[in-house]
Amino acid sequence: MSSPLDAETATALASTFKALGDPVRLRLLSLIAAAGGEEVCVCELTPAFDLSQPTISHHLKVLREAGLLSSERRGTWVYYRIIPEALQRLSDVLIPVGAAAT
Amino acid sequence: MSSPLDAETATALASTFKALGDPVRLRLLSLIAAAGGEEVCVCELTPAFDLSQPTISHHLKVLREAGLLSSERRGTWVYYRIIPEALQRLSDVLIPVGAAAT
Repeated sequence: MSSPLDAETATALASTFKALGDPVRLRLLSLIAAAGGEEVCVCELTPAFDLSQPTISHHLKVLREAGLLSSERRGTWVYYRIIPEALQRLSDVLIPVGAAAT
Repeated sequence: MSSPLDAETATALASTFKALGDPVRLRLLSLIAAAGGEEVCVCELTPAFDLSQPTISHHLKVLREAGLLSSERRGTWVYYRIIPEALQRLSDVLIPVGAAAT
């Protein structure tokens, strides 16, 4: 965040941050990120939550549409993988000038 | 994001990310961050937007309540300053395992 964001960039970034503004989605993202770049089956994610599989799938879809996850359907299951560049880009936006300069 | 987030941490983080899920708030934050740790008067921020000052003040209040900004009223105006540690903490959460390991 070294220079002020223009309106267009801010709109795109805001929709991505909005996708992160939900505890279930943050936990899903962290579970997938913890796989260290490997793909994770939705069937491995659902047991961590007291939620139905359609609800989990909905949250994963929001994260995918925000460009944070890629997905691949194989047989019965969908497999998700982190898009590290997208997370890195968001992370970079948050580093304030002061901290980045040190 | 080196280990999965617990539910409590995810809830706290999600509310902060939610505060960032708005283009006006992101632009306000980036304008204040661009001051490099210096405080910025609300009177300097309002002209950058086609919005009323109460609207801008509302968005600044959301950012302050999310722990991203500190504020101080002096005379007529309120002055805002970035809390770099809060942004750094959010930024750290987003660095996926793969990227952090390189």
